[in-house]
Amino acid sequence: MSFSFDHLGVATEDGAGLASTFETLFDAPLVHEERFGGMTVRFLELDAGYFEILEPQEAGTISEFLSRHGPGIHHVALRTDDLVAALDRARDAGVALVDEEPRPGAWGHDVAFIHPKSTGGVLIEYVEAAAAASEQ
Amino acid sequence: MSFSFDHLGVATEDGAGLASTFETLFDAPLVHEERFGGMTVRFLELDAGYFEILEPQEAGTISEFLSRHGPGIHHVALRTDDLVAALDRARDAGVALVDEEPRPGAWGHDVAFIHPKSTGGVLIEYVEAAAAASEQ
Repeated sequence: MSFSFDHLGVATEDGAGLASTFETLFDAPLVHEERFGGMTVRFLELDAGYFEILEPQEAGTISEFLSRHGPGIHHVALRTDDLVAALDRARDAGVALVDEEPRPGAWGHDVAFIHPKSTGGVLIEYVEAAAAASEQ
Repeated sequence: MSFSFDHLGVATEDGAGLASTFETLFDAPLVHEERFGGMTVRFLELDAGYFEILEPQEAGTISEFLSRHGPGIHHVALRTDDLVAALDRARDAGVALVDEEPRPGAWGHDVAFIHPKSTGGVLIEYVEAAAAASEQ
């Protein structure tokens, strides 16, 4: 079972502006954009890993996060090659899960979130790349 | 100029406990620990990248962060092969800098921080590995 940084999820009301800033600063091109879960989601690619910029288009968890915290880091996503085994291990360790099973995430990946109360206040998402998406 | 995720900085009052949790969940061994800047700093290594766990040992920016926000993600660090050029580019883009020049960071690296007001509330650290540290 392997784990590495897949992306850092950043919440903002100005997705296009922040995408432009990150692209300029970090040579990070916009490689994927979609409407997903009431948000516009933009992926900017670094030499390894992505920024995922989350811009709400309707009321939901990201608009609530922005109301409470203001813009900033929302979660970190770890890429794993075995999401089901990663969730089993977390359960065995007594860690609280937001998602008991993998579910469809942005960009066609399978994802599941761990509850931040078990991980020092850090909201962690597991990502297992779907074959088609990883070839993009 | 290249940029990739080097580490995610996490603030906590319980550095040893969180290090143990991350090691168990993510196969991330503790590869470096030191006292730095009034903190105990622990690096846990993923297949690519690190978690940097920041535990304050005296009053300072991390203890203030914990008082204001509680435990959680404090910053993200991007590794670059040319820190001076990265800072020049940020200045040219009108981005506010916390550090105008590289300074010594944890684990012997050269580092500099960008002000989060210019990057969507995200506190970003540039890291350029010192030759000796990168060989550890």
